[in-house]
Amino acid sequence: MTTLQDLGEHQLLQRLQRFCPDSIVGDDGAILPIQPGYELVVTTDVLVEGVHFSEQTTRGFDVGWRAAAANLSDLAAMGAEPIALTVGLSLPPTTPWSWLEAVYQGLAACTQQYHTAIVGGDLCRSPVPTLAITALGQVQPPYSLKRSAAQVGDRLLITGTHGLSRAGLELLLHPQVDKALAPSDRTAWITAHQRPRPRLDILPSLRPWQTQRAIAAMDSSDGLADAVVQLCHASGVGAIVWAEQLPLPNGLVAWQGQTQALDWALYGGEDFELVLALPPNAAIALKEQIGGMTAIVGEITASTAVQLEMISDNGERQTVPLDQAAGFQHFA
Amino acid sequence: MTTLQDLGEHQLLQRLQRFCPDSIVGDDGAILPIQPGYELVVTTDVLVEGVHFSEQTTRGFDVGWRAAAANLSDLAAMGAEPIALTVGLSLPPTTPWSWLEAVYQGLAACTQQYHTAIVGGDLCRSPVPTLAITALGQVQPPYSLKRSAAQVGDRLLITGTHGLSRAGLELLLHPQVDKALAPSDRTAWITAHQRPRPRLDILPSLRPWQTQRAIAAMDSSDGLADAVVQLCHASGVGAIVWAEQLPLPNGLVAWQGQTQALDWALYGGEDFELVLALPPNAAIALKEQIGGMTAIVGEITASTAVQLEMISDNGERQTVPLDQAAGFQHFA
Repeated sequence: MTTLQDLGEHQLLQRLQRFCPDSIVGDDGAILPIQPGYELVVTTDVLVEGVHFSEQTTRGFDVGWRAAAANLSDLAAMGAEPIALTVGLSLPPTTPWSWLEAVYQGLAACTQQYHTAIVGGDLCRSPVPTLAITALGQVQPPYSLKRSAAQVGDRLLITGTHGLSRAGLELLLHPQVDKALAPSDRTAWITAHQRPRPRLDILPSLRPWQTQRAIAAMDSSDGLADAVVQLCHASGVGAIVWAEQLPLPNGLVAWQGQTQALDWALYGGEDFELVLALPPNAAIALKEQIGGMTAIVGEITASTAVQLEMISDNGERQTVPLDQAAGFQHFA
Repeated sequence: MTTLQDLGEHQLLQRLQRFCPDSIVGDDGAILPIQPGYELVVTTDVLVEGVHFSEQTTRGFDVGWRAAAANLSDLAAMGAEPIALTVGLSLPPTTPWSWLEAVYQGLAACTQQYHTAIVGGDLCRSPVPTLAITALGQVQPPYSLKRSAAQVGDRLLITGTHGLSRAGLELLLHPQVDKALAPSDRTAWITAHQRPRPRLDILPSLRPWQTQRAIAAMDSSDGLADAVVQLCHASGVGAIVWAEQLPLPNGLVAWQGQTQALDWALYGGEDFELVLALPPNAAIALKEQIGGMTAIVGEITASTAVQLEMISDNGERQTVPLDQAAGFQHFA
């Protein structure tokens, strides 16, 4: 098995440059055109073996795909179309070349699907495999999305189902359990975890509304609850999330029960959908236009409390704080 | 001593955001204006504890300064003025806050000195402290610098002395030795290692010449010899480097001997000067204009061999391959 130290740095760089456009390779940096009237958008994510991925649940291809998708999702949350990605890699010298090649194949597959490319990066040795991805995008100023644009009375629109990535992770961690699950559900949830889709596709639908008023947005990479809390915090408002409006697949509720399914939907993370706050008429129109599992799941309130409203067994409405403490804290 | 896990992610991010411009903070990405007629330049570097820095030789402030300087040097080598930096950090939860604060103070000091700023990043836990920096710059197309622009007959111009960073590292690794060295030399070399200066200052001097013909450039972060070899390789040419033209401080030659001093100048690395290939008249004019230790140290040849020409003890000229194998290979 060929390892990185077998190849040496120069040959390794040559092999990795095959994944980059020819016009870009070979300088200290990459030069990229920006369209006139556009602003630059930049976002960075770091992924660490044992923290963000493990060999048990994530093959090289999927490590690459997920890393690219997470950064493209951040661009989507800014309203920006992708220009390019850079990849900073630190890896043990004993890393098999086949693993790294698969990571790049995953990066390339995801970037190609979203009409962008890897344009450079850095490579060095480290005891712990780590990927640092920076994504560059461009946006015309009226069409940028910001967390701080939510207004009282806005509806919360989510672009798809939440909790599926967490369900897929559960299946990957415990492949022997629950063989009674429908194979289609099993496949769908594992795919949701391994091949998340950044929601760049919905940006054109937003633009007609953005000429009237700014739309608030964030992606749900750290969980739906976290996204709502962050949006509200940045906008100085509160929200009520209607639990019964959250799309939960029947198979997931049957497998894990209502409470666990709701918990995964709110706190599971890594679904990479967009969470938008926008006027009710825009929310209703976009729900129709985007379709799929797009749902209106709450509203922005003047109180700064962020609440989850649930219907109890006896039919009464009750609210509980949508506590972000249940979310993923990197240093907790 | 307060550690990162004592602070938790939210408080940690709040503290780090104080180092970023207010207008930038709080979204999934940063939005940056690009001047009309400019192209975007992007470059990424990864620094790993134990590989690129160690607690013995590099304090937190200097880790930050060097990381910023290395990336700004890559922008200088592209002819680009800086727009912004992003910082991807992975750190053990037991890292003292005081160390991370010092890293950010170093990053901020260097970016401020070169009129740019940290605009975002990511933070996560890892067993191995790692910094991934991406620098963004802008350049008007005629003024970009490329490795591939060297032409036969060009002179090789270096913007300063090489080997000082390596000498400073030696003093930091063995502080007890060679107390007879001049304190001014000792200080200068340690400063060269801890606080390298990206040569963004020379870019305006190049522009009048760039309207006539493209200039080839690379920075000498991986060593002067490596830079010459890479320039030649990208341009499909060769070079002769004249050993006797390399500026070597007297104190360094007296301390380490001529052979070792030359070796450090060629292969030591991390001097972050620019190595330029350009027509002789331009080289002569720029040597005068830039001043300091700027030197013309060789010429571009039609043969693809890259040679070092030395004067032997009996006065004869001899050439040896400027072998890049002596340089720093990350996976060798």
